[in-house]
Amino acid sequence: MDKIQRNERIAVLVKMLSDSPGKIFTLGSFAEMFGAGKSTVSEDIDIIQKLLDKFELGLIETIPGASGGVRFIPTMSKAGIKDILGSLCTELSKKERLLAGGYLYMLDIIYNPEVIGNIGRIFTANFYSKQIDYVITVETKGIPLAFITAKYLNVPLVIVRHNNEATEGASVNINYVSGSSKKIQTMVLSLKALKRNSRLLFIDDFMKGGGTAKGIIELAKEFECEVVGIGVLIETAEPVKKLVDNYLSLLTLNNAIEDESIIDIKPSIL
Amino acid sequence: MDKIQRNERIAVLVKMLSDSPGKIFTLGSFAEMFGAGKSTVSEDIDIIQKLLDKFELGLIETIPGASGGVRFIPTMSKAGIKDILGSLCTELSKKERLLAGGYLYMLDIIYNPEVIGNIGRIFTANFYSKQIDYVITVETKGIPLAFITAKYLNVPLVIVRHNNEATEGASVNINYVSGSSKKIQTMVLSLKALKRNSRLLFIDDFMKGGGTAKGIIELAKEFECEVVGIGVLIETAEPVKKLVDNYLSLLTLNNAIEDESIIDIKPSIL
Repeated sequence: MDKIQRNERIAVLVKMLSDSPGKIFTLGSFAEMFGAGKSTVSEDIDIIQKLLDKFELGLIETIPGASGGVRFIPTMSKAGIKDILGSLCTELSKKERLLAGGYLYMLDIIYNPEVIGNIGRIFTANFYSKQIDYVITVETKGIPLAFITAKYLNVPLVIVRHNNEATEGASVNINYVSGSSKKIQTMVLSLKALKRNSRLLFIDDFMKGGGTAKGIIELAKEFECEVVGIGVLIETAEPVKKLVDNYLSLLTLNNAIEDESIIDIKPSIL
Repeated sequence: MDKIQRNERIAVLVKMLSDSPGKIFTLGSFAEMFGAGKSTVSEDIDIIQKLLDKFELGLIETIPGASGGVRFIPTMSKAGIKDILGSLCTELSKKERLLAGGYLYMLDIIYNPEVIGNIGRIFTANFYSKQIDYVITVETKGIPLAFITAKYLNVPLVIVRHNNEATEGASVNINYVSGSSKKIQTMVLSLKALKRNSRLLFIDDFMKGGGTAKGIIELAKEFECEVVGIGVLIETAEPVKKLVDNYLSLLTLNNAIEDESIIDIKPSIL
């Protein structure tokens, strides 16, 4: 291969790092790929770090030690988060989203790759330092959000089902009580799905009473795993007291309003 | 902002283009961002194009006309596809994956962000020229794959449910017959989910008889939409004749073997 110029190396490095967020690359592997010295690659990385900073596109983390290297963490500036949550509130407040029973139509939002990518970046920025081993969610609506967060954190996704499936193999089933409707529901997870002693991040689209999150914490215990983070896109203002204590919600929907034609939704953070 | 050097511009362009695959950016918007001339940005894009080509990292498409610009399409070289499908077959052939009833445990594969990202790139390379408006799938196991394909194509994802949900609003329900088990099942999709006259790409993890794909084609008709592409990760060798004709499968699982301790799975393409 011809000798590769700095701007070419930088372009390829940015592409590779941001294509595999969370993945650790050694400087040696880059040096070999380019036929360049490690110190040259190290300078390239410095330039990229400054650029990502300047344009608020994420951060490069340096991991020291023998198994060390560099990895890209998708993050978002406070201004970026404010913009995104603000425009989400505007969009979700549209009257035509009101459904029978006081529900909000938001499937177009929570399945939209661009929106979900941005929300995933916010969760990643918040949770990447917690040494997450798996992102876990319950089918169905939270799956895209949980998946993109898992992708950005470079960890496997685990999906809990409501019914037993032949494709799961032997499984652990638990019953849990929905925090809002008080209905008894079932969670099913394959015995092969989680390594023991893992650290889990639970991601979901919506939290009302917190029963699902509590169920996940119980389920995790059966696998000797720990839920070290909970992130939801939207929580309801009522009940104020959820069944779980520590969670990050991005938006709060005021569900205790008199006039049902007004949708009152606000950022929970910032 | 200080004047920005070529290698800085190139790094930022690569980052922005590959973060939003399928999204059209105008040269004018880049020129404005950098305070540079359009011809300068155009040269930058040329350099990026050659680099992506050289390292087989995807392609830059130029869209002419008033609403034109450039966009990044994640693709994969034939050699890359061969590598990925080959190592998937090795992994899926492991004896310990066999479950009761001749099923294969593959949740760790189809929920793995890195694997699913690669498979999504193969689907994107194959379908991006078909002017897809939506990627559609049926819950649950195909959702990560369908979502990443939608993200790479920059179109919304639509998830068909098996049961009616209050959060869907008014919906269209159809019954369909599973191609293999002959069981009658239900598909539910919100009336708001699809604009009329749209072009759909159906993505799923598995195809046996093709009943689900046929059901999606029927459901699409109720919305005056057309399924213009079908992509599945794995199809079974039997039945040879599926209920749909045109589909892309990446792997073929020979399910008609005598000795149930051997898993015979091969790439369907290349």
